[in-house]
Amino acid sequence: MSAPFGRLSLNTKTSNAWTLREAVEGAAAAGLPAVGLWRDRVAEAGLDEASKILRDNGIRASSLCRGGFLTGFDDQAVEDNRRAIDEAATLGAPELVVVAGGIPDRDLPGARARLAERLAALVPYATDRGVRLALEPLHPMYCADRAVISTLGQALELAAPHPAHVVGVVVDTFHVWWDPDLRARVAEAGAQGRISSYQICDWLVPMAADPLMSRGMMGDGVIDFASITEMVTAAGYFGDVEVEIFNDDVWASDPRDVVETMKRRYRKLVLPSLGEAA
Amino acid sequence: MSAPFGRLSLNTKTSNAWTLREAVEGAAAAGLPAVGLWRDRVAEAGLDEASKILRDNGIRASSLCRGGFLTGFDDQAVEDNRRAIDEAATLGAPELVVVAGGIPDRDLPGARARLAERLAALVPYATDRGVRLALEPLHPMYCADRAVISTLGQALELAAPHPAHVVGVVVDTFHVWWDPDLRARVAEAGAQGRISSYQICDWLVPMAADPLMSRGMMGDGVIDFASITEMVTAAGYFGDVEVEIFNDDVWASDPRDVVETMKRRYRKLVLPSLGEAA
Repeated sequence: MSAPFGRLSLNTKTSNAWTLREAVEGAAAAGLPAVGLWRDRVAEAGLDEASKILRDNGIRASSLCRGGFLTGFDDQAVEDNRRAIDEAATLGAPELVVVAGGIPDRDLPGARARLAERLAALVPYATDRGVRLALEPLHPMYCADRAVISTLGQALELAAPHPAHVVGVVVDTFHVWWDPDLRARVAEAGAQGRISSYQICDWLVPMAADPLMSRGMMGDGVIDFASITEMVTAAGYFGDVEVEIFNDDVWASDPRDVVETMKRRYRKLVLPSLGEAA
Repeated sequence: MSAPFGRLSLNTKTSNAWTLREAVEGAAAAGLPAVGLWRDRVAEAGLDEASKILRDNGIRASSLCRGGFLTGFDDQAVEDNRRAIDEAATLGAPELVVVAGGIPDRDLPGARARLAERLAALVPYATDRGVRLALEPLHPMYCADRAVISTLGQALELAAPHPAHVVGVVVDTFHVWWDPDLRARVAEAGAQGRISSYQICDWLVPMAADPLMSRGMMGDGVIDFASITEMVTAAGYFGDVEVEIFNDDVWASDPRDVVETMKRRYRKLVLPSLGEAA
């Protein structure tokens, strides 16, 4: 058996109280190979310093979060997405997570059309820099204010005109666990070579009052991690498994404890379903 | 032009402070032809008295809400659903809204399978009593604790083995507005003659802290009522348009004002898209 945590990545949101340096050193101390980065945390450290911290600790960036918000009425966001692509390239993050953006008015098809156009405009830039745009379907409860891509099927449709090595899709358990078409769409994403990232956290019941803060530690909610992990594995995904948790209780805990709990839960609930691919 | 409110139905949840009698008399005074009933409000009045109140006021019951919660480990709920079917028959409500139920554990496919079995068990009983089981897909944020049917497509799949006059589907704007497949699935539901009910209310931004209370008055949120109403009309639905709002501010208002606002917003946002069918 290979190292049990050889694919486990700590998203900097999960250890929210840590600076970038603390998160990278914490991941290294915990025997993890990678961290998932948010741009605000990178900006605090400075881009070059962040790259150096990763190199010095032998830690990879599994993804950079996030680009996107491409549904507005002007093209302003496109330039910011180019900067995000540059940052991902500098950090060696192979995947830039793209959150679509919400609806500025009541025209959902219009917002989706603008997103498709701007994605197309970004593809050549991302191709040149060797960074994949990882389209993340967000749970439908965020459709209005955050992401007009609500399902994996929809993300695949949006990705379809572009090469798989430049536009991929994110499978995040919190966002997709309810989807009756999940098994088929994960298989399709795998067959196309488009799974950019497998992100995990649990769905809590009841939800938190702030829907953004309702992501829980694996095992604290209702998601069947064995089932979804098997789908992703069967689809041929062998990349990082990134734990991304937004949760007031988790954020109030010592990040070292959070990382230990995360490793324990991952080993129990996720690792067995990675099979040989672990 | 026919009467502008000839298809508008007041759900008793919208006028939550009113007793059943007050709601029925309030609907009659407002020139509405129908009310959507919740069972608790009917039980308060008593079933026979509720029927009499409707008759005396010349008001129809557009639907009875709700049966369902059929995903548990025992069959107890089936008997309660038979009682709900009886009540709908007594009240002359042609449609019993069925809310699937959530997941008692982490096995989503298992919960869906139990639902399908119990639905099949209820079909002969509903057929005999002339009541249609109206499967309501709920927004995916309720998948864990309330409804394992999250999309119209999924409801149609569940309905497929049964005759259209016995198992239909509900189109509720709040639950389905985000669905990228909405247009196709509404058309499919219409072609099958399965649209049981068109329920409307808005999606508020930001959401209420209690996700159950986030349903808003039409026009207060982000839903494009013209677009969805056109889909439903093009699909050949000519039935009641039921306004169902769970919202603390609406509930704290004088129900007479709520009904007047509802009529005004309906006339402005919904009626023009009902076309000839109004």
